[in-house]
Amino acid sequence: MEQRISIVTLGVDDLRRARRFYDALGWHGQEVQETVFFQAGGMAVSLWSHEKLAQDTGMKNSPVQGFEGFVLAHNVRSQAEVDQVVATAEAAGAQVTRRASPTFYGGYAGAFTDPDGHAWEIAYNPGFPLGEDGSLTVPKLGSD
Amino acid sequence: MEQRISIVTLGVDDLRRARRFYDALGWHGQEVQETVFFQAGGMAVSLWSHEKLAQDTGMKNSPVQGFEGFVLAHNVRSQAEVDQVVATAEAAGAQVTRRASPTFYGGYAGAFTDPDGHAWEIAYNPGFPLGEDGSLTVPKLGSD
Repeated sequence: MEQRISIVTLGVDDLRRARRFYDALGWHGQEVQETVFFQAGGMAVSLWSHEKLAQDTGMKNSPVQGFEGFVLAHNVRSQAEVDQVVATAEAAGAQVTRRASPTFYGGYAGAFTDPDGHAWEIAYNPGFPLGEDGSLTVPKLGSD
Repeated sequence: MEQRISIVTLGVDDLRRARRFYDALGWHGQEVQETVFFQAGGMAVSLWSHEKLAQDTGMKNSPVQGFEGFVLAHNVRSQAEVDQVVATAEAAGAQVTRRASPTFYGGYAGAFTDPDGHAWEIAYNPGFPLGEDGSLTVPKLGSD
């Protein structure tokens, strides 16, 4: 299995509401068959009915209260940019779960959930370089 | 907010068990401060304590039963490759939740959960081209 993700699909209860939220963050998507696809670097983020996504994956659809077990990190180039993205998300209706503050790894991060409870962390991590296109490279961390 | 994900962090209850699983899929990671990072194209996948991840995100840590609300799709280049990756995952201890079969969009896909219940879909979708490096490009879908 190659080491990559092609699409992160987020289950949503109301596609209109979810799309409005990501639109308000400045994202641009395409909609087809009640699914919205956003190009995100060399992969895609998609929004689809929570119920249909569970069914299509062969899993029991049970609503999740609180933390879902994963976080999507969006790394940026400065502390100021962390503050700015978290503010944009909050204005768009996100619930801020962690006010931007220093992190244990020497960076700075804030976190929020989107209207369906999916968690995003906005992080400035000077130890993980970002390319001009926003791609992230894991540095040599000293142990394999 | 730029349209990209830097890191998908998966909460795990047992880092050794989780890492063994991804190793068995053929992935190679680096471990630091009880976190494993896998380079995955222009982003990273990381494994970290479910409890610490929830806490760090400012969320209540509650165990999730069943579908977590998201799916990581890994697209491949043929039906045969779908079968092969699903078989590799099953041999590594994955729970297959959807036997590989044709999809409503004219492709072919199977799905499984990793040892911590995170859902992966392995898909062949002839409508979504993959680059030589495995990157995915969302085609023009006919509506914005």
